[in-house]
Amino acid sequence: MSSNFSLFDERILKVAIMGLGGYGTRVAEAMQSCKRAKLVGVISGTPSKVENWQGKYNIPDKNCYNYENFDNIKDNADIDAVYVITPNALHHDHVIRAAKAGKHVICEKPMALNAKEGQEMINACQQANVKLLVGYRMHFEPKTLEIVRMRKEGEFGNILFFQGLSGFKIGDPNQWRLNKELAGGGSLMDIGIYAINGARYMVGEEPIWVTAQETKTDKQKFKEGVDETIQFQMGFPSGAVASCLSTYNMNNLDRFFLNGDKGFAELQPSTGYGPIEGKTHLGQLTQAHKTHQTIQMDEMAGIILEGNKPIVPVDGMEALKDLRIIEAIYEACRNGRKIPLQA
Amino acid sequence: MSSNFSLFDERILKVAIMGLGGYGTRVAEAMQSCKRAKLVGVISGTPSKVENWQGKYNIPDKNCYNYENFDNIKDNADIDAVYVITPNALHHDHVIRAAKAGKHVICEKPMALNAKEGQEMINACQQANVKLLVGYRMHFEPKTLEIVRMRKEGEFGNILFFQGLSGFKIGDPNQWRLNKELAGGGSLMDIGIYAINGARYMVGEEPIWVTAQETKTDKQKFKEGVDETIQFQMGFPSGAVASCLSTYNMNNLDRFFLNGDKGFAELQPSTGYGPIEGKTHLGQLTQAHKTHQTIQMDEMAGIILEGNKPIVPVDGMEALKDLRIIEAIYEACRNGRKIPLQA
Repeated sequence: MSSNFSLFDERILKVAIMGLGGYGTRVAEAMQSCKRAKLVGVISGTPSKVENWQGKYNIPDKNCYNYENFDNIKDNADIDAVYVITPNALHHDHVIRAAKAGKHVICEKPMALNAKEGQEMINACQQANVKLLVGYRMHFEPKTLEIVRMRKEGEFGNILFFQGLSGFKIGDPNQWRLNKELAGGGSLMDIGIYAINGARYMVGEEPIWVTAQETKTDKQKFKEGVDETIQFQMGFPSGAVASCLSTYNMNNLDRFFLNGDKGFAELQPSTGYGPIEGKTHLGQLTQAHKTHQTIQMDEMAGIILEGNKPIVPVDGMEALKDLRIIEAIYEACRNGRKIPLQA
Repeated sequence: MSSNFSLFDERILKVAIMGLGGYGTRVAEAMQSCKRAKLVGVISGTPSKVENWQGKYNIPDKNCYNYENFDNIKDNADIDAVYVITPNALHHDHVIRAAKAGKHVICEKPMALNAKEGQEMINACQQANVKLLVGYRMHFEPKTLEIVRMRKEGEFGNILFFQGLSGFKIGDPNQWRLNKELAGGGSLMDIGIYAINGARYMVGEEPIWVTAQETKTDKQKFKEGVDETIQFQMGFPSGAVASCLSTYNMNNLDRFFLNGDKGFAELQPSTGYGPIEGKTHLGQLTQAHKTHQTIQMDEMAGIILEGNKPIVPVDGMEALKDLRIIEAIYEACRNGRKIPLQA
């Protein structure tokens, strides 16, 4: 047992990571500082990556799988949970297979390509009696949670407006994120979901309508079905409104702004991996930065093993709500209409 | 002649203010520091206000008019120009009458209730061979002009995104700004025009489409035809997009953000009367604050008397472009469609 773990406290969540790409690597590195979660296995189609990770993270052969044989994980008592970090289009199959193998599942966002898939994944995990969590790392971020606390306690008064600008300039045109088959869409699936999800936890309500407008300046790089830039708006039951931007064509666009009738909050950067910076009408937010994926995995260990309830949900239903909004935004882009949503 | 004026330089623009309300008073105060423009007359329906202003600004009886007799201003060689600061619905009549009296006209924004009225006002001023300027005070504001300069010189690279949030919480429910007959609309006519106009001078292009969504939380205060909150979006020929908010229901919402592929600019406050504050990717903007209405009136004196060309236009055509966009935004609110505009 690593020296990070004390001898007498809670159980440790033993995790296998599926998909050893850039973000999987980031999670693995962050988990080295975890107190309650431990990387113990890998699932990958690339033997050289597996070998590399085995050396780096001291993973035994018996905890290494590929996409053909990973259903056998059901017989591996060393592994409590699988963290699915494969391209979006594969989440549905991978989560359901992990659930059927009797393992808890953590799935990267977006959970699926659409709400139908998402519902099927939720059902499969329920049937298998395993937990399904989604990698909403911001739901554990201290400055974000301070704003959520303030909002719940009425420190901003009635919430009137949220603005979420989420984007970056995407590089390599050949990556899976720009492949409709694997990504299921474009910027909205990948970075725009931060503004969607952020609108929900910042405002503290579920939207009842969306409108959206798509703009594409580079049809070569952003092929049919892969969105470059989408502006979208949401309305909430209280009358609060949200104005958001999702883009693969602007550098480091990462701003949240929440406006109430008694105060405001802003975060910039609001969802990037590095330290979140922000202020409210009361002054600068000073909560210390911790690596998001480290807190996330420690907190998820508590949720899975102890039944802890997070302040902002990270379960499949939470993700399904985002997927329904994503679908409505794409529909609004296509038909130009205001799309009603069930709050 | 006031000691503000030097003896040997340019002519002084002699101005009568029409409409002695809150903003008229602000302009009159600001004009006390002007070097090239001088308040010499008033037009008002309220004798007590006229008397008060006469005392305060040393205005002779012969330069005082009411709404019945002000056409006689045509015979008053002491007055070069009339600054129309009456409720929006009256601009059309007042500007045309001032023009017919042979006086140059400065009109507060919005210039009119709609584009048809605006065009008629432009025509009337052309026929009368007088100049028509509109009170776009931000077009002379030093930090704003620095951003316009940087954008023109390519310092932000290709412009991708503009955000304009313009709003305040309106007080007295009985004021003319909340009366459809006098205001012609709600927040969009009054404060939203800053975001519309700002989008145009910040991006440096004319929009080719708009979409918009209206939200009303207080139907008592904001009656039929008086908008409380409108979100609107614009697309530009280059592919740049704008995301804007106009509201009478949020405190001190006054933010501009311009994003290009090489840099950014932000202003907050961006259009308020007090000092504008802002920064770009190169750092804080440090141009000194001057009272906006003072610079505006001095610069307008140069435009009217010397034929100077402002960096950002302030003529009737400039205002007509905003009116066309306002009409399209209201149309988009009504029918939910993307409204094309002629760039």
